[in-house]
Amino acid sequence: MLKVIEYDGNLKEIAQKLNNRKEEISIEVNNAVNDIINDIRKNGNQALINYCRKFDGYQIKDENDFVVSNQEKEEALKQVDQDYIRILERTKQQITEFHKNQIDKSWSLYKDNGVIMGQMVRPIERVALYVPGGTAAYPSTVLMNAIPAKLAGVKDLVIITPVKADGKVNPVIVAAAKVSGVDTIYKFGGAQGVAAIANGTETIEKVDKIVGPGNIFVATAKKLSYGVVDIDMVAGPSEVLVIADENANPKYIAADLMSQAEHDKLASAMLVTTSKELAEKVNVELKRQMAYLSRKEIIEESLQNYGGAILVKDLKEAFEVSNYLAPEHLEVLVENPVNTLPYIKNAGSIFLGEYSPEPLGDYMSGTNHVLPTGGTAKFYSALGVYDFVKYSSYSYYPKDVLETFKDDVQTFAKSEGLDAHANSIAVRFEEE
Amino acid sequence: MLKVIEYDGNLKEIAQKLNNRKEEISIEVNNAVNDIINDIRKNGNQALINYCRKFDGYQIKDENDFVVSNQEKEEALKQVDQDYIRILERTKQQITEFHKNQIDKSWSLYKDNGVIMGQMVRPIERVALYVPGGTAAYPSTVLMNAIPAKLAGVKDLVIITPVKADGKVNPVIVAAAKVSGVDTIYKFGGAQGVAAIANGTETIEKVDKIVGPGNIFVATAKKLSYGVVDIDMVAGPSEVLVIADENANPKYIAADLMSQAEHDKLASAMLVTTSKELAEKVNVELKRQMAYLSRKEIIEESLQNYGGAILVKDLKEAFEVSNYLAPEHLEVLVENPVNTLPYIKNAGSIFLGEYSPEPLGDYMSGTNHVLPTGGTAKFYSALGVYDFVKYSSYSYYPKDVLETFKDDVQTFAKSEGLDAHANSIAVRFEEE
Repeated sequence: MLKVIEYDGNLKEIAQKLNNRKEEISIEVNNAVNDIINDIRKNGNQALINYCRKFDGYQIKDENDFVVSNQEKEEALKQVDQDYIRILERTKQQITEFHKNQIDKSWSLYKDNGVIMGQMVRPIERVALYVPGGTAAYPSTVLMNAIPAKLAGVKDLVIITPVKADGKVNPVIVAAAKVSGVDTIYKFGGAQGVAAIANGTETIEKVDKIVGPGNIFVATAKKLSYGVVDIDMVAGPSEVLVIADENANPKYIAADLMSQAEHDKLASAMLVTTSKELAEKVNVELKRQMAYLSRKEIIEESLQNYGGAILVKDLKEAFEVSNYLAPEHLEVLVENPVNTLPYIKNAGSIFLGEYSPEPLGDYMSGTNHVLPTGGTAKFYSALGVYDFVKYSSYSYYPKDVLETFKDDVQTFAKSEGLDAHANSIAVRFEEE
Repeated sequence: MLKVIEYDGNLKEIAQKLNNRKEEISIEVNNAVNDIINDIRKNGNQALINYCRKFDGYQIKDENDFVVSNQEKEEALKQVDQDYIRILERTKQQITEFHKNQIDKSWSLYKDNGVIMGQMVRPIERVALYVPGGTAAYPSTVLMNAIPAKLAGVKDLVIITPVKADGKVNPVIVAAAKVSGVDTIYKFGGAQGVAAIANGTETIEKVDKIVGPGNIFVATAKKLSYGVVDIDMVAGPSEVLVIADENANPKYIAADLMSQAEHDKLASAMLVTTSKELAEKVNVELKRQMAYLSRKEIIEESLQNYGGAILVKDLKEAFEVSNYLAPEHLEVLVENPVNTLPYIKNAGSIFLGEYSPEPLGDYMSGTNHVLPTGGTAKFYSALGVYDFVKYSSYSYYPKDVLETFKDDVQTFAKSEGLDAHANSIAVRFEEE
């Protein structure tokens, strides 16, 4: 049940507690992963094959067996229900409808004096999407990562994923890859998979960026590869914060809090409300609904440790709390919820009103479900098309315009002790 | 002088050599910085004051002395030439003219079925700009960082910088801060300064992001603080690649290559040309101009180790080379340079034509000079307004539209084993 706390303007302790959920990388894990990376860099394919045998129990046969073959894909797809494929397709449509608005345009300034300046948007050329093996494989996450990448124009989008001991990939992942338009699925994951795709081997082409969730070894390998490739943010345990006034429906609130809590014992579900009565009703509903949910124990533990109901005196305070904690998911269950957007400064994804529950956003609202956690919504964004492009600036100056800057640039360069910089301008105006 | 190499389609060795310039963080530096961070987290102001005395030689008097006072600022400004302030102001104008085009807008979709979805752009609220002390303090870099942050709407933009033993900050930095509209200059830098501003102390408010260049201790402290705060990319040694056809002016090319080479013995300056004759003329010019430049020795060493002239058979090959190496700065000295933009995939900033030399871009072209180095232009962008904002997505669904997704979301959630997710949808359509 939720502990009810009265807001007194100080949330440091709660923020600290949520913050402490972050998994620290131990020296042992760090060193183990570092060794794997060095081995892959040095010994390439053979090292990769050895680690895969050791960790996944599958012996990759030869270099052709690094990739799921067309025949293997067809066999996997036969195991997936047609209605499930239809749902994936519909989800793709929804995600595409939202994310296509994030496609950025190159722009130019054409100035009266002849100067041309601007910024080009270019897709990152080759990107790997990490997909965890086993039960942690979420097809929805494949779509959430792959669709923005495809919209950005990424040419080579590949999946890396650990296989089962029989060499098979989870069929729903094969289906999600197909729906997303990802052709290449590599049969390796773990730290060794990240190392292989970040650095390349004799036969595996290196990528420019790696995205997607993974366990602590995968996260560490990504972190250690940062700079060699780009990586996405490292996600921590999930969280929801629900802002509710006295008219909100406690049944819905309880259900939404638990949908977050079921993810993980470290997940956090918070209610921020102006009504003590509502908080009590939510507690009654939590007890009632929890009884029939399969992940009851996880939910109970997470609500116990990282849940809570914060009582505020008005909605202004409610948004103060929410902006301070910067939740991954924010539900706003108040009158005229759309009108509250101006007060929201820090939140990953915002769900407005009674019929926009957070689980809709996990799948089919169209917004992305890869979001900043643990208060990092203060500086990070939801995953989007912008994560798969980079910008190049350019400038063209005619001689007479450069001349108007000649003296100032030289003075500036010399003041910074850089006389070859000044010389580069000077030589252009020397008498021949 | 530049060694002339014929292009044979293989640049791995050159790329590897450039790549190896990256400074690796030693275990000693890592541990030393880690200790400093832990000490600052635990002991706050007092630890900060101790480190500053130890490393900068200045004894911070009390908590008020953490910040450069108005009187200290006025005294510093008196030492700066009025014409220099005018140049800073003009540079600000140029940078603003370019960067204001990067200001992003929030957007909304209003669908026929009543759904509202969109994306809000929000500034990061509090940002610190690191400015190195001593001779490495570049006022141009203050402008290049501060102006985009201000345009993004960052409310609290502060500078942290190590002071001299007399407690003074370089007057040109005070001037650049004033021109950029930065009010608060903290008198601390180094790893301890980064730790204090990333975590906060009893009196110093933590920031959400830290940007700006620094030595290996600063870079390590930033890297170790990543996740607690956001950081900018870690810049490596600088580089320029010049693409030139047979009609390009060897005098200008030599001057531009040296303006890059003077930065650092590890800087790289490459010529890629269709003309062997041009490469030879550039070498003659390098020798002639080098004679009168103050940083001759650095230039010579950097050209020797990381410079080169790559001969290609046509411009198509030239862009192939450039896209593969993904240079920080790219100069295009060919006929109709603007028309070559479509062929450029990976480059930080592009300088088109004979009168747009790279040093103009370091100061006054308007484009940013904080750029991705060491081939990372394949996935990173020039610093811009987009680095100081974050995006929040939002969605509002009416009941009847949620109902059309009800069954599919439940099926999807259950397939991923998340029945509390399914329950969150189900409770909204139960009979009361």
